Amino acid sequence: MAERVDVDVVVVGAGLAGLTAARELLDGGRSVAVVEARDRVGGRLLNHELSDGTVVELGGQWIGPTQYRMARLVADLELETFPTFGIGEHLLRWNGECSRFREMPKLSRIALADVGQAQARFDRLARRVPLEAPWTADGADRWDEQTFETWIRRNALTRTAREFLTLYSEAVFAAEPGDQSLLHALFYTHSGGGVDSLSRTRDGAQQDRFVGGSQVVARRLAEQLGDIVRVRHPVRAIRQESDRVTVEADGLVATGAHAIVAIPPTLAGRIAYDPPLPPARDQLTQRVPAGSVIKCNVAYETPFWRDEGLTGQANADTGPVKVTFDNSPPSGSPGVLLAFLEGDHARQLGRVTPEERRAAVLDSLADSFGSRAAAPVEYVDLDWSAEEWTRGCYGAHFPPGVWTRYGPALRQPVGRIHWAGAETATVWNGYMDGAVESGERTAAAILSTSRR
Amino acid sequence: MAERVDVDVVVVGAGLAGLTAARELLDGGRSVAVVEARDRVGGRLLNHELSDGTVVELGGQWIGPTQYRMARLVADLELETFPTFGIGEHLLRWNGECSRFREMPKLSRIALADVGQAQARFDRLARRVPLEAPWTADGADRWDEQTFETWIRRNALTRTAREFLTLYSEAVFAAEPGDQSLLHALFYTHSGGGVDSLSRTRDGAQQDRFVGGSQVVARRLAEQLGDIVRVRHPVRAIRQESDRVTVEADGLVATGAHAIVAIPPTLAGRIAYDPPLPPARDQLTQRVPAGSVIKCNVAYETPFWRDEGLTGQANADTGPVKVTFDNSPPSGSPGVLLAFLEGDHARQLGRVTPEERRAAVLDSLADSFGSRAAAPVEYVDLDWSAEEWTRGCYGAHFPPGVWTRYGPALRQPVGRIHWAGAETATVWNGYMDGAVESGERTAAAILSTSRR
Repeated sequence: MAERVDVDVVVVGAGLAGLTAARELLDGGRSVAVVEARDRVGGRLLNHELSDGTVVELGGQWIGPTQYRMARLVADLELETFPTFGIGEHLLRWNGECSRFREMPKLSRIALADVGQAQARFDRLARRVPLEAPWTADGADRWDEQTFETWIRRNALTRTAREFLTLYSEAVFAAEPGDQSLLHALFYTHSGGGVDSLSRTRDGAQQDRFVGGSQVVARRLAEQLGDIVRVRHPVRAIRQESDRVTVEADGLVATGAHAIVAIPPTLAGRIAYDPPLPPARDQLTQRVPAGSVIKCNVAYETPFWRDEGLTGQANADTGPVKVTFDNSPPSGSPGVLLAFLEGDHARQLGRVTPEERRAAVLDSLADSFGSRAAAPVEYVDLDWSAEEWTRGCYGAHFPPGVWTRYGPALRQPVGRIHWAGAETATVWNGYMDGAVESGERTAAAILSTSRR
Repeated sequence: MAERVDVDVVVVGAGLAGLTAARELLDGGRSVAVVEARDRVGGRLLNHELSDGTVVELGGQWIGPTQYRMARLVADLELETFPTFGIGEHLLRWNGECSRFREMPKLSRIALADVGQAQARFDRLARRVPLEAPWTADGADRWDEQTFETWIRRNALTRTAREFLTLYSEAVFAAEPGDQSLLHALFYTHSGGGVDSLSRTRDGAQQDRFVGGSQVVARRLAEQLGDIVRVRHPVRAIRQESDRVTVEADGLVATGAHAIVAIPPTLAGRIAYDPPLPPARDQLTQRVPAGSVIKCNVAYETPFWRDEGLTGQANADTGPVKVTFDNSPPSGSPGVLLAFLEGDHARQLGRVTPEERRAAVLDSLADSFGSRAAAPVEYVDLDWSAEEWTRGCYGAHFPPGVWTRYGPALRQPVGRIHWAGAETATVWNGYMDGAVESGERTAAAILSTSRR
């Protein structure tokens, strides 16, 4: 027999969105149960201990400026952060050559000018997308009927600018420019403050890290919430009656006056709803797939690149690893390189053996950092597409035709069911900050209603 | 306690694909259980009786030339067909005017020439897509990184040609050109024999109808299969062990050496699999949404348009109803007009009250057929996006980036699980004929293996 709990609000998913919603609701005097499929909290935040005890992150890990909700949460939870290592020169592997740079990569003036004009043009369009309702943008229909790739081919004149924008798409969306709607790429870029804001380490989305690994945020929140967080209970069905909603999970049935579904849209669409969801909501969740990324942490006795005056950040125009960061702990020992496989590269290396993938990643790192990079003391990776309770990262991207046809269904509650998660945020959509926004929004909506 | 059955092969879904697979497997000496969520067989084939007993179809209904598998099935099952009514002139509501025509619509020579060149160019590209593996086409990457809409804007010079191709997309895919990949539109067009073959009544996919309504095909098949077809058992989970597969449905647990999942990909993705499906398969089902269509049957005492020398077929460049057919029974009494709401028109009129929708459809019919069309004796429609066990018709369309990245996962079995359904067909993908192909293919694959 399944255990039964009865509360004011049932929250599905113990990621940052769900935990934040629960916290707000408790503060508002409501009783809550958080029902989580995994045996842990944190969703797309996941710490991993290397064999020497060093903590690295296998999931989302950074915070940056203008992420005000996260800044407040960090202060509230008394968490410590530290800057992503960025002293020295970056590497650029481009056109078959590897060069070092601080601010401006060593590329031809024509290429740099073309990157500049394309980025400026893209940022200018992005700012014209209303974050609350992208489908109302002047030009929304035209932007949503084409892919980001189509826009790139029309607006980037040089190979370098095309590759730069492709790299931007892969690194920020874990999707190829041809996978997503131009309108979505514009919305998301605006939501995160522009191309530079999303791409940069210092002054950008990758600026700071959490001491102890980013999952501490979720763990600390969950500790404060206590035993209302119920793990190992995958939710299978949600039934609404006139005044109650019943959330049926493996081993647990939770009833409440409201439910908040705080999981990615593609997973929310797999729950059985009774009564069935309206067409707009159901067809939305058919149409917003998760991206493809494998995150690799590669550990060395020391961060040898620092001795060579390098930041550990290397970008490349060829894969499989096109983006790296220094992910060493605050002590600087061991040295850890973070290598991303994104979009097509994640899909391709998601189909080979773990050994083949490791070899391909190390080869690619050696292309940038030399042969020492090919001989780590430890290697760990995670294919988020293979995670049963995520099924892709970083978040959802919207293919053409979805924002303009189904956008309003993204946040619109269905009866007593509210939709949270980083994908539903207006600001910093897809980021921790957006997840927190979504938790606060849904909790506030419920708190504004009379009880039961 | 759930009932338990143990067979050689468990088939999920009693549409044409599942029923065909079951029939082939029985013929091959295997024991079978067909597990169906609904209280009926037929899937996207659905008869409806008007109040006078006249049968009309709310789902797929036509067969046409080169649908050899369906022709054989019709003969085997001793079913009767009759030609879709087509005597007289068609209507074209275009540029604000309504005109009559037989072969060539009354449009300017320039417009007709442009439609001709665009269609010819599109058909020529379509023939270059290998039906077994669209992702291997020369040019597949370029065709898959853009939408069909992008292609239209580049290749159709006149408004008429653009509207014609938009109408083609809506009528054949129940999707807007901006919703789908150019590669998908090309593949599907090739699969169905070209634009004319897919669009036409005589000599095309809408050529013939079934006496008694198209659901008779599924019903007759199910009658022959007998009590192995188990309705009202929605499948929730499929578990694979080394030598068995267990299909868990509401009220029924069926075990077999193999399973065939013969439901649309987006629904197949909602079943819980243990072990979880590999990333390529799971991410595929996140990415192939069902189209949007509401099918309306509008009955009159007589088919009054026939008296006026009209076929009942009217096309229009403005909605909500852009495509109609004469759907009267063989006797010609009552008169029935079939009106389609497709793509955006289905989405918009899926959100209003039934009364508002009816009024909008009748208004639109009156624009083509005059005021008599606004006063039917009976009206019935079905929004397939609202059907819990379909969630959209006619079938799945592939957004950009899906065929080239996930194509092989469409038919590739996962252990003991095989994938059927009209979406998996190479010839007449999305049609009854394709559903039958997929049933035959999966049954043959299992029959070629040793038993248990």
